[in-house]
Amino acid sequence: MKADHKKLERAFSPKCIAIIGDKKETNYMWLRSHSNFKGKLYSVQVAPEEIEGIKALGIENFTSLMDIPEPVDLAIVAVPRVIAPRILNDLIQKDVAAAHFFTAGFSETYTEEGINLEKMMIEIAEKSNFHVVGPNCMGIFNPSIGVGQGAAFQEAPVAGPVGLISQSGTHAVTFNRQASLQGLAINKTVSFGNGIVLDSPDYLEFFGNDPGIKVIGMYIEGVKDGKRFLKVLREVAAKKPVVIWKGGRTEEGDRAIASHTGSLAVSYSVWDSAVAQCGAVKVSSLDELIDTLKVVYFLPPVRGNRVGITGVSGGQSVAISDAFGEAGLRVPTLTNNSYEELASFFTLIGGGYRNPVDTGNQNRREIRRIIEILARDENIDNLALLVAAGMGPGGPPGESFPKLLVDIKQNIKKPVIAILAWAFSPGDVEQAGKVMKELQEGGIPAFISLERGAIALRKALDYYNLRNGNPER
Amino acid sequence: MKADHKKLERAFSPKCIAIIGDKKETNYMWLRSHSNFKGKLYSVQVAPEEIEGIKALGIENFTSLMDIPEPVDLAIVAVPRVIAPRILNDLIQKDVAAAHFFTAGFSETYTEEGINLEKMMIEIAEKSNFHVVGPNCMGIFNPSIGVGQGAAFQEAPVAGPVGLISQSGTHAVTFNRQASLQGLAINKTVSFGNGIVLDSPDYLEFFGNDPGIKVIGMYIEGVKDGKRFLKVLREVAAKKPVVIWKGGRTEEGDRAIASHTGSLAVSYSVWDSAVAQCGAVKVSSLDELIDTLKVVYFLPPVRGNRVGITGVSGGQSVAISDAFGEAGLRVPTLTNNSYEELASFFTLIGGGYRNPVDTGNQNRREIRRIIEILARDENIDNLALLVAAGMGPGGPPGESFPKLLVDIKQNIKKPVIAILAWAFSPGDVEQAGKVMKELQEGGIPAFISLERGAIALRKALDYYNLRNGNPER
Repeated sequence: MKADHKKLERAFSPKCIAIIGDKKETNYMWLRSHSNFKGKLYSVQVAPEEIEGIKALGIENFTSLMDIPEPVDLAIVAVPRVIAPRILNDLIQKDVAAAHFFTAGFSETYTEEGINLEKMMIEIAEKSNFHVVGPNCMGIFNPSIGVGQGAAFQEAPVAGPVGLISQSGTHAVTFNRQASLQGLAINKTVSFGNGIVLDSPDYLEFFGNDPGIKVIGMYIEGVKDGKRFLKVLREVAAKKPVVIWKGGRTEEGDRAIASHTGSLAVSYSVWDSAVAQCGAVKVSSLDELIDTLKVVYFLPPVRGNRVGITGVSGGQSVAISDAFGEAGLRVPTLTNNSYEELASFFTLIGGGYRNPVDTGNQNRREIRRIIEILARDENIDNLALLVAAGMGPGGPPGESFPKLLVDIKQNIKKPVIAILAWAFSPGDVEQAGKVMKELQEGGIPAFISLERGAIALRKALDYYNLRNGNPER
Repeated sequence: MKADHKKLERAFSPKCIAIIGDKKETNYMWLRSHSNFKGKLYSVQVAPEEIEGIKALGIENFTSLMDIPEPVDLAIVAVPRVIAPRILNDLIQKDVAAAHFFTAGFSETYTEEGINLEKMMIEIAEKSNFHVVGPNCMGIFNPSIGVGQGAAFQEAPVAGPVGLISQSGTHAVTFNRQASLQGLAINKTVSFGNGIVLDSPDYLEFFGNDPGIKVIGMYIEGVKDGKRFLKVLREVAAKKPVVIWKGGRTEEGDRAIASHTGSLAVSYSVWDSAVAQCGAVKVSSLDELIDTLKVVYFLPPVRGNRVGITGVSGGQSVAISDAFGEAGLRVPTLTNNSYEELASFFTLIGGGYRNPVDTGNQNRREIRRIIEILARDENIDNLALLVAAGMGPGGPPGESFPKLLVDIKQNIKKPVIAILAWAFSPGDVEQAGKVMKELQEGGIPAFISLERGAIALRKALDYYNLRNGNPER
């Protein structure tokens, strides 16, 4: 089926949503997760005991979809699976633009009943060219207008540059929350589950054309039409960065996929090189997905593997150098010019400046000068700044170190990343979240461990090497 | 110099501490970090403007060490480097058991003055067989009696089973805090910096004989006497688990070591096999050090690589299987007996049970039965349980899921680990910290990411394979 982008546009940016079959048992998760929806929200439910609870939420309920007095852009369906085909017919009759089926229990159960029900759904949808998101998924997330994804999002999400396409509902919901908390906000997310009508290439093409989406992340377990997937991927990756997390990189993962979405196993090495040839970046975890989207969104092109590091002290210099070294990056010595300039003011007691340049002590007062030396140094392609809790520039107390770094960065053309050295306490995490956002709003992507920062920078280098046809990996 | 364990015993568990040269500029960091010290605390300072601030803290000050009216077990020295040799002579005259020199600026600066001062210190100390911890380090941490390590520890540290020996002060302080926050408490830590008199083997031997220390972690950049280090390591590793994080695993890290402690570069592959032959486990980061100490402390011997997993849903099943697969572990299919039993009660809609067994949904109500099936299954050597925020067993709300897991675990002989799927918000982290402690108090080590859990279990398997002379890696 050919996806109609006008219909998808209505579904992803709806003016009117109908939620069908939401219930008390799940604490009305779909109605509740649309409490901030900026359009019209209706419920469709026939059970009197459920209707009572829905009315208590202040939401208008109809006992038939047909009774909704206006066009519906998106339906969210949470009915039992046996009723799903009947609801699909109603949706077609009502001319709804698209429907997300949260309902599960189809081919992924490997039961005869599930497989037959899915076949029935496909037949009905294809006959009428009806756009189904799912089934067995978390559907659409559009924080700018309050389209929720069924999950509690304690902190109000803000809208940002990322489009996420996920074959897993859990990963979609987790990504939305984790990325937002780490200062990378979402434009639109889709979790598409079994993908019986619309599949990943449809969403990829649609996100490729969406001007609000600047970078695309994907979680993929398998593709039905590999040729089409790679064709669309190549087209979209030429327009904006695409970062792909593939589930099933091991035999163990492939077995788990069989009981999750039932996608066919793909040889990971074949997948790997095909994806690279299309100009997309591959990652191996949710954390790497977030971090890599940050580097390709926030950084200018990364052109070399040599990193100048400052902000560290003693043992951290060693740990950060090992982390960058193990990610295949270099932490080289600086030019003689740089060393001469550093020698003119640097306090050697409690810190060296070979590279990393230690500024975990009194030398931090000279942080601007040190960063500018690294930025000018011709042995250095990229800068990495370590930021620790409570770090001030050594000047007046309370001066914002992140603000200072952002200010210094404005005149630097080389890629600059920040690494946060914070601990695992509630207070630390609160402060780290704020600092990360402050740095990123100033164009410095920030990461919560040495290793994560090093791998992210490496991924950015891989991405730009791919785009430039540079074989050096 | 041969270390005198009676003197070290006095230094690590002092009844009387003298802090020499603490000052306002550093906000009296050494005096303040001993505010909970259970013995007698004295200050030695001659500058009148500093003495005022010290008296304001309520601490008795003497202008000479000789004036302290009782034997001193540990001196902490924070004077400028040029005075350090004179202070050392005073310490010898006063017959202090040992002194930690926080003072830096010696051979690690590569300056003539620094190198000469260090030589002078070594001569003086060796002539009198005086025990110096450092210089250029954070010294001793013993939370059970309030011996602090100069750093703010917002949360009161509790005493536990871990001994940490670190060549880096930053890593020591960070480890103390991170490990404690993740439910792994410290017995004693030493940061020994330049190690001019006492070196890592001295502390290792001492910790090996300390009955309060059950597991030993080390951060090492280099060793002066390799033969002695390996001899002591072999002896101690035969008595209790030793986990070693080596700095300088790459050329980049080695260069950074040169300007940190100035240790000589060791070929990492040579180091690696030597350490393994001694029966110690190697790790590559602070996180891995914490996680690996957890598995060797909390788990019974790990005998095989096959893992039964539950607590997950959909995409998490795939991600966790890939993470374990990439760590070299297996997530195999179960026996037919297990599948028959699972089939008798499992709800297939919304989850499969091939392994991982999905209990992210209504099947969680059967979590006890499911865990017991995995524990009995002869294809399974270890269990991994995924615990998510707000997860209840599906029974009465508010029932503690961690408590239930600990209760189920009591009858299971196989190693059981838990993995926490929490996000990066202050509330999440607070809850995660509590859950981690609750699980670990019940003997289930818990980790804050899929990858960290998988790698930790792999490290435990490597450790027990080494001990049993099992070549399978």
